[in-house]
Amino acid sequence: MTYEFWYWNGIPGRGEFVRLALEAGGIPYRECAREQGVETSDLVADMTADRPHPPFAPPYLVAGDMTISQTANILLFLGERHGLAPADLAGRLWVNQIQLTIADMVAEAHDVHHPIASELYYEEQKTEARRRAEHFREHRMPKFLGYFERVLSRPGGWIADGGRWTYADLSLYHLVDGLLYAFPKRMSTLARDYPQVMALHERVSNLPELQAYLTSGRRLPWGDGIFRHYQELDGN
Amino acid sequence: MTYEFWYWNGIPGRGEFVRLALEAGGIPYRECAREQGVETSDLVADMTADRPHPPFAPPYLVAGDMTISQTANILLFLGERHGLAPADLAGRLWVNQIQLTIADMVAEAHDVHHPIASELYYEEQKTEARRRAEHFREHRMPKFLGYFERVLSRPGGWIADGGRWTYADLSLYHLVDGLLYAFPKRMSTLARDYPQVMALHERVSNLPELQAYLTSGRRLPWGDGIFRHYQELDGN
Repeated sequence: MTYEFWYWNGIPGRGEFVRLALEAGGIPYRECAREQGVETSDLVADMTADRPHPPFAPPYLVAGDMTISQTANILLFLGERHGLAPADLAGRLWVNQIQLTIADMVAEAHDVHHPIASELYYEEQKTEARRRAEHFREHRMPKFLGYFERVLSRPGGWIADGGRWTYADLSLYHLVDGLLYAFPKRMSTLARDYPQVMALHERVSNLPELQAYLTSGRRLPWGDGIFRHYQELDGN
Repeated sequence: MTYEFWYWNGIPGRGEFVRLALEAGGIPYRECAREQGVETSDLVADMTADRPHPPFAPPYLVAGDMTISQTANILLFLGERHGLAPADLAGRLWVNQIQLTIADMVAEAHDVHHPIASELYYEEQKTEARRRAEHFREHRMPKFLGYFERVLSRPGGWIADGGRWTYADLSLYHLVDGLLYAFPKRMSTLARDYPQVMALHERVSNLPELQAYLTSGRRLPWGDGIFRHYQELDGN
């Protein structure tokens, strides 16, 4: 079965966490909105069409009769069905737990440049963004990265036992990649404190399973999505 | 097996979503931090003790050898193990999806009074909070509540098929309860547009399985947690 994958056109966004799992897992999918040149309004129309399990927002995956949304939920499904996470209960919950913690940091990274409202432009909340960014860089980045460092500081260097990557390793790679893009100065200071996290980033970027994708046009560049680079929000 | 449940003392917080499932499911658990009069620092010490699967933050549940954290992940576990969610794949993912959407709104409700940083007092971010609250009341509350209304507007009036509550129904009840506490004015305007959501809130509050808990001292009152009532952040 070829999955139908739906996400906003033009930014990696939350969709990218799902794409990485599909690509590294060698799982056939169609990037529907991009393929069909679908605009925002059409995607909203598709999403709100009559479905037994409607999504609140993209990304969502259509798998036969099922429509599955919420990034971590899609990954839970793909992990179980395609062996992208351990099959045992403890391992499965552990990988989901890390994915949800990654999702928490992703949401906070977004709110750095949109601390007041998603529906306003960055320029309309610049003052507040500066203040939030300071706290994010100072407190939240070390807190989250320190946690992931601890998680990875076990034999093997992957998130779960089993000697191989899971979908959460791919997501952590992408999160770190986003942080490197948005906060290059801060990350150059922090990187030395989190060698395992940086090694994971490097290791995933070199996975043979991902090379074709990472060098293809399908991997969208960073831009005006969740992770944004504004010089005034970065700092050592 | 009696689960050991850990959460900060004194506020309902994210722990309450787990408590409601444990209580309504008749599942034995110990409220460890409260029972032991544990302070914040001791809870942090317990949490960061050497565990194969360390939590990033409370709540967490110790189930024999396993330590499970992230609210939605704990509920996923309890749902599977104790039949608090459908057993089939589509139903299980659907309930998880709704739980994650509830979690998104919970995080946004928190950030209304803490738009800049969790580690600052409300008083240090009052100006920004006022601005964020305006957008939350105007845009986000109708968006989320409208979605939940749609979810509940199916025969049965529960989130999943099967004619009974799931853990996500309990969580939605608690979310609405928090909104009624924090934004009474706004909710009195919105309630009439979301009759199914309000009916769900009423129905869960009357569940026979929850009566002993809801009238006990174990159900903590709202206070200075995720949902806070500041008059200046509410409005019609």
